[in-house]
Amino acid sequence: MNLLYEDLGYFDLTTHGLGIGEKQATMSFAPKGEVILCGVDEVLKVMRELNIEHKFHKRDGDCVEGKEIILECKGDAASLHKAWKISQNIFEYMSGIATYTNSLVVKAREINPKISVATTRKNFPGSKELMLKSVMAGGGVIHRMGLYDSILVFEQHLNFFNTKEELESAFTKLKYEFLEKKIAVEVEDYKDACYFASLGADILQCEKMEYATLKKCVTLKEHYPHLLLSATGGIHESNIEEFAKCGVDFIVTSSPYHAKPLDIKVTIKESL
Amino acid sequence: MNLLYEDLGYFDLTTHGLGIGEKQATMSFAPKGEVILCGVDEVLKVMRELNIEHKFHKRDGDCVEGKEIILECKGDAASLHKAWKISQNIFEYMSGIATYTNSLVVKAREINPKISVATTRKNFPGSKELMLKSVMAGGGVIHRMGLYDSILVFEQHLNFFNTKEELESAFTKLKYEFLEKKIAVEVEDYKDACYFASLGADILQCEKMEYATLKKCVTLKEHYPHLLLSATGGIHESNIEEFAKCGVDFIVTSSPYHAKPLDIKVTIKESL
Amino acid sequence: MNLLYEDLGYFDLTTHGLGIGEKQATMSFAPKGEVILCGVDEVLKVMRELNIEHKFHKRDGDCVEGKEIILECKGDAASLHKAWKISQNIFEYMSGIATYTNSLVVKAREINPKISVATTRKNFPGSKELMLKSVMAGGGVIHRMGLYDSILVFEQHLNFFNTKEELESAFTKLKYEFLEKKIAVEVEDYKDACYFASLGADILQCEKMEYATLKKCVTLKEHYPHLLLSATGGIHESNIEEFAKCGVDFIVTSSPYHAKPLDIKVTIKESL
Amino acid sequence: MNLLYEDLGYFDLTTHGLGIGEKQATMSFAPKGEVILCGVDEVLKVMRELNIEHKFHKRDGDCVEGKEIILECKGDAASLHKAWKISQNIFEYMSGIATYTNSLVVKAREINPKISVATTRKNFPGSKELMLKSVMAGGGVIHRMGLYDSILVFEQHLNFFNTKEELESAFTKLKYEFLEKKIAVEVEDYKDACYFASLGADILQCEKMEYATLKKCVTLKEHYPHLLLSATGGIHESNIEEFAKCGVDFIVTSSPYHAKPLDIKVTIKESL
Amino acid sequence: MNLLYEDLGYFDLTTHGLGIGEKQATMSFAPKGEVILCGVDEVLKVMRELNIEHKFHKRDGDCVEGKEIILECKGDAASLHKAWKISQNIFEYMSGIATYTNSLVVKAREINPKISVATTRKNFPGSKELMLKSVMAGGGVIHRMGLYDSILVFEQHLNFFNTKEELESAFTKLKYEFLEKKIAVEVEDYKDACYFASLGADILQCEKMEYATLKKCVTLKEHYPHLLLSATGGIHESNIEEFAKCGVDFIVTSSPYHAKPLDIKVTIKESL
Amino acid sequence: MNLLYEDLGYFDLTTHGLGIGEKQATMSFAPKGEVILCGVDEVLKVMRELNIEHKFHKRDGDCVEGKEIILECKGDAASLHKAWKISQNIFEYMSGIATYTNSLVVKAREINPKISVATTRKNFPGSKELMLKSVMAGGGVIHRMGLYDSILVFEQHLNFFNTKEELESAFTKLKYEFLEKKIAVEVEDYKDACYFASLGADILQCEKMEYATLKKCVTLKEHYPHLLLSATGGIHESNIEEFAKCGVDFIVTSSPYHAKPLDIKVTIKESL
Repeated sequence: MNLLYEDLGYFDLTTHGLGIGEKQATMSFAPKGEVILCGVDEVLKVMRELNIEHKFHKRDGDCVEGKEIILECKGDAASLHKAWKISQNIFEYMSGIATYTNSLVVKAREINPKISVATTRKNFPGSKELMLKSVMAGGGVIHRMGLYDSILVFEQHLNFFNTKEELESAFTKLKYEFLEKKIAVEVEDYKDACYFASLGADILQCEKMEYATLKKCVTLKEHYPHLLLSATGGIHESNIEEFAKCGVDFIVTSSPYHAKPLDIKVTIKESL
Repeated sequence: MNLLYEDLGYFDLTTHGLGIGEKQATMSFAPKGEVILCGVDEVLKVMRELNIEHKFHKRDGDCVEGKEIILECKGDAASLHKAWKISQNIFEYMSGIATYTNSLVVKAREINPKISVATTRKNFPGSKELMLKSVMAGGGVIHRMGLYDSILVFEQHLNFFNTKEELESAFTKLKYEFLEKKIAVEVEDYKDACYFASLGADILQCEKMEYATLKKCVTLKEHYPHLLLSATGGIHESNIEEFAKCGVDFIVTSSPYHAKPLDIKVTIKESL
Repeated sequence: MNLLYEDLGYFDLTTHGLGIGEKQATMSFAPKGEVILCGVDEVLKVMRELNIEHKFHKRDGDCVEGKEIILECKGDAASLHKAWKISQNIFEYMSGIATYTNSLVVKAREINPKISVATTRKNFPGSKELMLKSVMAGGGVIHRMGLYDSILVFEQHLNFFNTKEELESAFTKLKYEFLEKKIAVEVEDYKDACYFASLGADILQCEKMEYATLKKCVTLKEHYPHLLLSATGGIHESNIEEFAKCGVDFIVTSSPYHAKPLDIKVTIKESL
Repeated sequence: MNLLYEDLGYFDLTTHGLGIGEKQATMSFAPKGEVILCGVDEVLKVMRELNIEHKFHKRDGDCVEGKEIILECKGDAASLHKAWKISQNIFEYMSGIATYTNSLVVKAREINPKISVATTRKNFPGSKELMLKSVMAGGGVIHRMGLYDSILVFEQHLNFFNTKEELESAFTKLKYEFLEKKIAVEVEDYKDACYFASLGADILQCEKMEYATLKKCVTLKEHYPHLLLSATGGIHESNIEEFAKCGVDFIVTSSPYHAKPLDIKVTIKESL
Repeated sequence: MNLLYEDLGYFDLTTHGLGIGEKQATMSFAPKGEVILCGVDEVLKVMRELNIEHKFHKRDGDCVEGKEIILECKGDAASLHKAWKISQNIFEYMSGIATYTNSLVVKAREINPKISVATTRKNFPGSKELMLKSVMAGGGVIHRMGLYDSILVFEQHLNFFNTKEELESAFTKLKYEFLEKKIAVEVEDYKDACYFASLGADILQCEKMEYATLKKCVTLKEHYPHLLLSATGGIHESNIEEFAKCGVDFIVTSSPYHAKPLDIKVTIKESL
Repeated sequence: MNLLYEDLGYFDLTTHGLGIGEKQATMSFAPKGEVILCGVDEVLKVMRELNIEHKFHKRDGDCVEGKEIILECKGDAASLHKAWKISQNIFEYMSGIATYTNSLVVKAREINPKISVATTRKNFPGSKELMLKSVMAGGGVIHRMGLYDSILVFEQHLNFFNTKEELESAFTKLKYEFLEKKIAVEVEDYKDACYFASLGADILQCEKMEYATLKKCVTLKEHYPHLLLSATGGIHESNIEEFAKCGVDFIVTSSPYHAKPLDIKVTIKESL
């Protein structure tokens, strides 16, 4: 995925048509308000590809105050205009996700300092790498990247078993086969939670439960000390504290992927 | 960009580990509530790549009611589980953008039936193709795809001119050179609007103006009958009608790119 | 598209087999006769990928005299031999197109200083980026990049309308929908030209017309002052002046894509 | 290299804007005059990617008469309009090269029925696959694909040897190392030809020699019965017979790469 | 990664040169001796890309006896010859790994029916997908795909901690942060094993330990019932049983990646 | 093929989770025992992509003694940990092949100093570039890269000829058409060897012959002084001398592709 090419295509008609491409200039980037920065690796690639002299003053994950300079660049107007908007766009979207994620983490940890905030695989299709990196920069973790890195049993799997015996035998085999992975099961009520805890699930992903049910499920930890529980389904900035209070070990959410981009101001000046 | 690969990677551990991959099943997709559909081409590629028998009942841009079937599929559980979430994700995000765009178009056209709604190049980096297709499916148009397909003069270009003469000569050259393109200029106040209208700009993009200023700029159309004006900056569902009332020819907005995905229910059943 | 890889593959058998790869050498490029240069970005990528020290003395679009040095390089013989022919080839083909385009522009502007020369989308399949950049370097512009960046109505579209009403309603919708674009229509005779001018076409692309017909179409500009007309179909170096004399606003041609490559001499010398 | 994407991008604005996309239609391709056809594999990919029903009546390398149908297609107008020009373009350019190559082969073989016509690696950068396939379809062969598939010693290699002994030892090593390859050397005069024949070159590539010199070089075959000689440098349709008469074993030329595209007529009709 | 292209390039010179390409033929694949089959998905892509009619009689992971038919194909000789060797090569290498892995699994499970066999990330660079799929087809699992899907602490990480406190605080943070992952540590002696078990490691990867040490480490499971231990370093077919006898929960090995390809016979016959 | 990405994916969880990424460190690579080095170009790309300061002390093809430093690097721990294993892996596998190939060459040349050792196209699918480069670094050559660079007639081609006349006419045409290539034929017995030598084959590839038969085939060189013979089928380190003694001109083998990787020790130290 070439982010520069997506925006630039073969050429920049406006700068070419105005005949200003060879003028020398500087360009700098600074957020309007405080942000948790993300996008440094991606903007670095843009700068390198366009052969633009550059100096980064910040790293991914840094908390940058309003008007603090993130990056300074120097080059001809043709190159700077090619780099401008895509770089701004990268910083704005990725920092938007990182900052939002961070706010979730901060809120949840005020309730439970050991809780972690994990995001789902429901990113915008084609943008997994950028969205996941942004979550990590904001202090979140990744619930699962895709089908290849983790085990999560859904009702849509269970439907294929016609008897309890079949299911239990398959579940046991799964546990022994993939013993380096924790086995997670999505459950929707207390009964299912009990059942899968008893089968040896490592993680119960409690989907769209009411707080009372969720709290009841959490009590299973008394009997299964290694059992982990997560809450998922519709969790965001304004309700995460309620979920954290239920005692779950971690939160699973897609909400950071929909975070609004945050303003990054770009200043381009002719070098005199 | 291979959307399937992004989610699947090399294999689906859960389905493999449970040993259910060879069972035959059906899978169907239907929205929970009414949506303007988008994602058919992309989901089709997933189905083809996985060799899944499929039948689409709807096209991009169709208004689909809640519970209406969009797509039916048939195959082994291994293939259906690979296709499931990425297809759902494509439909949910793309239809989310299409539906939101459509709502903007409908609202704006209630005020002015000839107005059009165009989206900016500030899409999530790397997702231009999917986001732009979704906008088109929703009845919107694309303001500019990138630097390569259109002319838009910003203050960051004007800064490179030291005298009015230089600027005017460059502007005239630009107009003659790219005479198949309309020349757009971003303006922030009435004075600039007058100036660039007088230089022969085809389009004035009125950036973050108050309604009064915007209306005043629109009066320039009396003197320049071919002049087009657009409003841009912070326009979304709850204020688009106000902007439409100012008399601009079109609206430029990024808000559809941040539309929430809309629920698409997926049903997987074993074939008996 | 990796141009270096296309020529080099995995290795250079001859240089390897002769055992001369580690010798240090210099390489320089100069045209045999005057050229409008193009290919600097592409050759730069070759040099960077091979880690070759290099210095460009010219930019794309420069008029370079015979024997003037464009580029000097320094490295081991293995790297220089890998870079040699593909770099030469890039310069020769791209400068061939740039130089030919420039000659069209010069000839046409001697007749009409405001005329512009635009090339079609009929480039060699797969070579659009290089061919279009070369045209721009030569002072031409791009008529349309493809189906995605511009509106051009052909007879093959009109065939789908069974009544004038249907067509006119669709045409009006098209104009309002894509109001940031100029609407072009390909016409083959005066009658069609009149008709589409009356419908509000912004551009009439006059396809393979005789000079007399073309001149007659140009008179439509008296009634439609914003109307633009182009001539297209079989226009090249030896007849472009005749077309320019007809009074069209611009010329549309594919002939630069068939321009012969121009000789660029490459000198490789062992460093002593 | 995705040829369809290059022309189509994300969407076809004109067909979309006119609202005719869902109408059913047929499309057929036929040359205006006789051609040696090439492009079937590439057009097939376009048709498959767009899910267009299609039937090819001809194969690459077939001699197709004017107005004979090459390909018939059926689908909705949206898909046919996406496929139209890029398919036409593929057929026109590739058949242009195939037909030109074929004419060279025919002319040369009228003089010497065993001669072969080979093309150089000086194709347009990035278009090697299409250009080389076209040459093969026309009855030509490929002199060398690049640095990786063949051995050709140039003066630019010889320059790195300071003594005859060094050169001869390297040359012998080259012959033994790559004994599955024929060793070719580019020579510019009779003296060099004699020298490299005596060293055991398999092929002498006679670069830009006058006919008399070339004929003299060909006499070396009397002493070296396995020696092959080729003529290269500025050979095209109007002089190939003269070169063939000199007695060389094969001709090396780049001229087919500059062949003009040949007209292929495309007919699109609404299905009633 | 296009496996077909890697072998075919632009064309098949031999079949083209012999002029047999249009003849109709059949092709079938069968192993010489018993194999655990792998490569079906990859060969399927080859067949589809070449438009070859095909029927698979077996799936990945099937145990196929000598001379049993895996796949039958039908098409013109040109297509079959393009598909032949790359398909054979895919089956031979992938089945080689699958069969070898299976033999490891069988041997280890004779000692301990619950043990699993996992392969490292030390695959041949660039071949991860094919090698990992082959391991899974043979009944093995993947220890870790890369840096992105799992946590494994090496001495090369520990070196960066200057005090025990720093390390322990980092380790605790790691456990809480990535609580959906099991935390693995590579240890080389019993002392380290005790230490990291006491810190709460989920998995101890015992690197190149003697059997006695390994057995001693396994006794840690008495105190830490959830602790898993693996043996790694130089484990292959002839010693895996000894390692299994030590009582570890799983084996980690790279040896399947070096398995020899197994013979698959291909029969091509002209259709009469 | 991005080797770094294959191992790294989007991020390195362990180093990130331990919080040591910003510490400065050095990393060096040295073989445990003597190796013929290969992998420099590929590791260089890893270092460049990660922006790691680096200095190579050796080149591909160099004989490096145990503990000699190949490469030194400097950077933050995050970058070094990303580069570590994939770089080690590249060096270990590629040097494994190069060293094994070299040992074949040395052994064969002790018997016949002019013999060459060539490897087949039966590389692991998808790894051709790395495997072939490694063979060349070890002093071997490439028998054929694929279907596109050489002519080799198999029984599977001959099966398509129903009469000797057809075959002979096709064979003659092949020779004249591709006269820059040597024509090779795979033969399995003396009779076939005689027959194809008489038809003018340049190379006879003697497949799985007994030594006596092979020696008899070699006697054909007395009658056909330009004829080359190779032995192929099951040739490796322990029997290559026997084949060399039969008098063939070169050896064709796949055995280097299965060579074990050789240990390269990597040392990472914090910079103080």
